[in-house]
Amino acid sequence: MKIGVLGAGQLGRMLALQGYPLGLRFRFFDPTAKGPANDLAEQHAEDYRDVDALKKFAQGLDAVTYEFENVPIETARLLSDCVPHVFPPPAALEASQDRLVEKTFFNSLGIDTAPFRKVDSLDELRAAADELGLPAILKTRRMGYDGKGQFVIESADQIDAAFTALGGANLILEGFVKFDREVSILAVRNRDGDSAFYPLVENIHRGGILRISRAPAPHISPLQQPDAEDKAMRVMNALNYVGVLAIEFFESHGKLLANEMACRVHNSGHWTIEGAETSQFENHLRAGLNLPLGSTQPLGFTAMINLIGKVPETKDVLAVPGAHLHLYRKAPKPGRKLGHITLVGEDPADREERLEALLNLVE
Amino acid sequence: MKIGVLGAGQLGRMLALQGYPLGLRFRFFDPTAKGPANDLAEQHAEDYRDVDALKKFAQGLDAVTYEFENVPIETARLLSDCVPHVFPPPAALEASQDRLVEKTFFNSLGIDTAPFRKVDSLDELRAAADELGLPAILKTRRMGYDGKGQFVIESADQIDAAFTALGGANLILEGFVKFDREVSILAVRNRDGDSAFYPLVENIHRGGILRISRAPAPHISPLQQPDAEDKAMRVMNALNYVGVLAIEFFESHGKLLANEMACRVHNSGHWTIEGAETSQFENHLRAGLNLPLGSTQPLGFTAMINLIGKVPETKDVLAVPGAHLHLYRKAPKPGRKLGHITLVGEDPADREERLEALLNLVE
Repeated sequence: MKIGVLGAGQLGRMLALQGYPLGLRFRFFDPTAKGPANDLAEQHAEDYRDVDALKKFAQGLDAVTYEFENVPIETARLLSDCVPHVFPPPAALEASQDRLVEKTFFNSLGIDTAPFRKVDSLDELRAAADELGLPAILKTRRMGYDGKGQFVIESADQIDAAFTALGGANLILEGFVKFDREVSILAVRNRDGDSAFYPLVENIHRGGILRISRAPAPHISPLQQPDAEDKAMRVMNALNYVGVLAIEFFESHGKLLANEMACRVHNSGHWTIEGAETSQFENHLRAGLNLPLGSTQPLGFTAMINLIGKVPETKDVLAVPGAHLHLYRKAPKPGRKLGHITLVGEDPADREERLEALLNLVE
Repeated sequence: MKIGVLGAGQLGRMLALQGYPLGLRFRFFDPTAKGPANDLAEQHAEDYRDVDALKKFAQGLDAVTYEFENVPIETARLLSDCVPHVFPPPAALEASQDRLVEKTFFNSLGIDTAPFRKVDSLDELRAAADELGLPAILKTRRMGYDGKGQFVIESADQIDAAFTALGGANLILEGFVKFDREVSILAVRNRDGDSAFYPLVENIHRGGILRISRAPAPHISPLQQPDAEDKAMRVMNALNYVGVLAIEFFESHGKLLANEMACRVHNSGHWTIEGAETSQFENHLRAGLNLPLGSTQPLGFTAMINLIGKVPETKDVLAVPGAHLHLYRKAPKPGRKLGHITLVGEDPADREERLEALLNLVE
């Protein structure tokens, strides 16, 4: 079986590394030549809108998946006509690519979000700011990631500047939610509709980029895990979803407000490689090939640290007991995710102690 | 860092899969085109004695290792002159390639083996059979693996036939040891001389081929683990060893008699991918790059089943809780190792229960 992957970044790299043991082969499609997945499988470095290149890419593939959430929807649909299975379904991709569509979709399923308003004009922005109050966050509806395409409007005199800065159309204003932390759930569903859920993960960001995840998340109340699973299940059922789905939530006064979803394996699930019985990457592939899903049981108390902008010396990282290093072979650049470190502790105190040692290396 | 690997079989495949996360790259050398490692790295398919091809292979490599124990010693030595590090040291390869040299080496370090005699003539064989008694096992000194190149001599009238069958020279006669089981130890040593040991593994063979490993081995007496580690340490120190070393022992009346060693990652260590904190593959690479060794701590009670000659349906294997499938993408052929399954149980009873379920699939 040969799997095509749109995007050849670190997520694709890890999909291949976790999929090879199942006897799978891989082919990547990414306009950026020599992405992190390029070392370990063939890569077609063409444009996502090049129909001939896509058709060539599709030849002989048994399934196609994405590791990049902004794959043009037409690309996904075209491939659906050429290969037996494209997963997650293009409709899911479509629902997640536009923040307005996504939040409207969440609400339609009874999943709470922060309040939001569509903004396509300065008048709409002013009205929205009045309704939701300030501070509020103006965001582009599409192509935002890692905190890009956002403007926090603290006071009314920033409205014009924010509107101009973000391009003046296709925006969304989100009411400011006072939240205690961000948590995420990783869910997976195969073609038969079997599903499984990883434990909630606590995510700590810096500069809009995920910095640290703890799994299972500390201090989760007995109702939160089933609540998150129920929300993910509603999304997956509504979309006839196949693959791994990640939903990020704001935890506010104990309630989970959906912020966004990713129709792919997710950074907050990297801990599963060493920290869970089956990794998110393997389960994503199992789901797409309609194989039995693997256990999502955590193997201990895990922390994951992203290596952003620079990487410490390998020997220093590996000298920390229980540290597992994952380098993506990307050129260092400020704000770029270059790798991550996972550590699995026997108890939460163990996790914190090792995390401390590692943070001293990477700060 | 780019690592060259002599041999592109399943061991090379797993070395690459476990080494990529460390940011390493790989290049394989194997006369057999499109070996199991071929999917996931470049391969030079030339002859091991082609000096020009070896020099081309060596270009730009930071280190070279072997995944195939019968690499010609001249090949290893030539590469030592071309790349900064070749590991394990060629001298170790040399000591392990000839059963007579190997057993003499063990004995010289005070490590017991079955009694043995050099056999280069029919007269020597007759004398050896007299001294050691029958039954005894006549073996080729070189190139034997998976039970090949062996002849069990039950009675004196088989002596001539055995001698002829095995080529009539460069043989060794080994006294028959009544042993209770075979166990193996996996040890690892880095260039600084730091070492680590995995727990003893119990190995069950069928038709001369490893069928099942259990790790940690059940019913190990308190003295056996330190005894095995001490023996491995003596071998590693004597050879200034770098990398993973496997030593197979016969357990006879509680004593460990060294049978053979492998200067490479070993089939009886495949369980470490899921069953230990750090896999043998990663530790082999860490050792060769002089990085801190990873913990060899087992994560539970693991069994490994080799898939020989045929493979069950992926969906059936993955339906067994805790089963992890590793396929090598080799064409099925009787007696050929095509993959393996690992399962990690919480306790020995759990391991046996799951093992039973899997054996029903693969028998």
